[in-house]
Amino acid sequence: MAVITFLSDFGLTDGYVGIVKGVIKGINPDAEIIDITHDIKPWAVQDAAWVLFNASRFFPAGSIHLAVVDPAVGSAQRRVAIASRDMIFVGPDSGIFSLVTNNSSRAVELSNSRFFRENLSASFHARDIFGPVAAHLSAGADLSDLGERIEVSGLNRILTEPMTESAMGLIGSIVYIDRFGNLITNIPNDRVGDDARLTVGEASLNLLATYASVEVGAPLAFKGSHGFIEVALNQGSAAEGLGIGCGAAVRVENRS
Amino acid sequence: MAVITFLSDFGLTDGYVGIVKGVIKGINPDAEIIDITHDIKPWAVQDAAWVLFNASRFFPAGSIHLAVVDPAVGSAQRRVAIASRDMIFVGPDSGIFSLVTNNSSRAVELSNSRFFRENLSASFHARDIFGPVAAHLSAGADLSDLGERIEVSGLNRILTEPMTESAMGLIGSIVYIDRFGNLITNIPNDRVGDDARLTVGEASLNLLATYASVEVGAPLAFKGSHGFIEVALNQGSAAEGLGIGCGAAVRVENRS
Amino acid sequence: MAVITFLSDFGLTDGYVGIVKGVIKGINPDAEIIDITHDIKPWAVQDAAWVLFNASRFFPAGSIHLAVVDPAVGSAQRRVAIASRDMIFVGPDSGIFSLVTNNSSRAVELSNSRFFRENLSASFHARDIFGPVAAHLSAGADLSDLGERIEVSGLNRILTEPMTESAMGLIGSIVYIDRFGNLITNIPNDRVGDDARLTVGEASLNLLATYASVEVGAPLAFKGSHGFIEVALNQGSAAEGLGIGCGAAVRVENRS
Repeated sequence: MAVITFLSDFGLTDGYVGIVKGVIKGINPDAEIIDITHDIKPWAVQDAAWVLFNASRFFPAGSIHLAVVDPAVGSAQRRVAIASRDMIFVGPDSGIFSLVTNNSSRAVELSNSRFFRENLSASFHARDIFGPVAAHLSAGADLSDLGERIEVSGLNRILTEPMTESAMGLIGSIVYIDRFGNLITNIPNDRVGDDARLTVGEASLNLLATYASVEVGAPLAFKGSHGFIEVALNQGSAAEGLGIGCGAAVRVENRS
Repeated sequence: MAVITFLSDFGLTDGYVGIVKGVIKGINPDAEIIDITHDIKPWAVQDAAWVLFNASRFFPAGSIHLAVVDPAVGSAQRRVAIASRDMIFVGPDSGIFSLVTNNSSRAVELSNSRFFRENLSASFHARDIFGPVAAHLSAGADLSDLGERIEVSGLNRILTEPMTESAMGLIGSIVYIDRFGNLITNIPNDRVGDDARLTVGEASLNLLATYASVEVGAPLAFKGSHGFIEVALNQGSAAEGLGIGCGAAVRVENRS
Repeated sequence: MAVITFLSDFGLTDGYVGIVKGVIKGINPDAEIIDITHDIKPWAVQDAAWVLFNASRFFPAGSIHLAVVDPAVGSAQRRVAIASRDMIFVGPDSGIFSLVTNNSSRAVELSNSRFFRENLSASFHARDIFGPVAAHLSAGADLSDLGERIEVSGLNRILTEPMTESAMGLIGSIVYIDRFGNLITNIPNDRVGDDARLTVGEASLNLLATYASVEVGAPLAFKGSHGFIEVALNQGSAAEGLGIGCGAAVRVENRS
């Protein structure tokens, strides 16, 4: 039985997440639903895309990822399901799937209302469309039953400046800041040598092995657990301590 | 196997929700527990009643709803289980069930201590009474085993001014404000025509189809997904933007 | 099938909790995971130790408790699994297990990398080590397979001043403050008579039976549901109302 993961910007206060789970259980009583997060900042599609990319790859093959951050809910924006990386993703074509699709992904537009709730609302498609579709998929429905095949290349994409290489070194940016205030870059660990030097804002930091390599409260750069270079303070917030926000430029010089 | 839903004002920080789940699993290892929310503001019975009403109706028949917001815990206030709408509700008679009962509901007072933990505390009845009762219900116990039948009409009710009709139009109020700052009224969608006009505070708004009908940051009124008229900003907080709080008066004029 | 509980300081925003659950489900698809909390303040091992102690004892025998608050992640600090109180605890030797071990506990150091993910990171051991170990335990692995036996007496312990007895009465302290602002002491209920008097800060309070014994907003001391004396305001925050923080001294005089 496939796991359904669930990511949204609904928060946990209002019961909206519970409602979607109730609808899913009504369609497939055996469905098992695991939350990724519901605390994406409202309408922050870019954060959602990063968290979905980072979390979904640790789930078993066959998992169904329900992901709903949808600033344009109720507009003509398409609703989609995408088979990618041995998993299925279901949600709005808001750009939330930008980082989980590739050339071998297959996508359909959700048009077959047989898989929706009756009496659709204009503002709660997770309850009325996406949750039901994920439930039917977990109960055995096939991607091709859900609607017409569409081009993956035509899906909405969030434009994130990719890392570039220059005479000055690798030039990237901060793409996500987590609860601990860790600054996560888009520079892959495997492009960086063990004695590299990283510059962000006014800080210039040697790459170190682990938090414990510096004093409590001191900054460091290191090969992060998500596969990308990170900047952190040992037991503190690098975002606050260094005054750095999302989008800030980062430079890494390999020295060997 | 019935689902147990769980709603409270316990928050997720202190482990109290996990404790109740542990107690339930000790009684019925097969119980499946789905959170509705635990972030009801402490002791906010009225918010809890609305969220419970709004969420519970999307769960399958047979679901057991454990709902605990209990400002008077430890007092002589009754503890109850209520069969209503093909489901069972368990919790304190604090008014939390005001919106889920009707004339055909049946209620019992929880008096049979065989279904409680031993050594009751005076302040954690979700762990000692309500959770265990929900677990036993999910394992097959019958409502009538739990205690004496009581009158549903005698249960505590939260007094919410109902919508009224006047020469000025439908007069209602804001009954809930969600995470997005959406203002949810007590005026049912099906009482409102498609070209109605809504007045709240200093704002006068045409009813529109969807968020996307207005500019980002602009206000609108619409037929909400929960079945009642809502006021929102497109990608913003109507509560903040319009300076409107819970309880504010709302007027809707049908114009056709 | 054993339940796996999960406690951490990861928060629910970034998807890290979901990642660990995904890894666990990949190892044992039948694993059932119940959150205790993920909102421990970052690196607050002492709070974590109290919540773990307080919550774990309400789970059925055989439960596996995954508990990760790890300020020294990536250092030479040991990773451990501990059989204690008919359950198994898995996590860093950060002191988080201080309150759940006793003379009859058995501990091993997690050294058998067969139970880890490949390509360990230096900063996300819940994903790479602790989660996988908990998953393998839930699938039947034996504690002794995980690594070498170590002395429980050699585990890191958080130094909390124990309660003492003096001519002035029982002298203890505030060890935890919960979401409601309730002040939880380390003075066991069963050491205190029913007409005792408690002093904390500038407040001197009679022991009462329940919140409802005082006016809304007034303070009281009572035998708490967790087994220790608590100080609370009826429907208010004692921490705010009395200006008391964690670690504050408390004195209880028995008078009969």
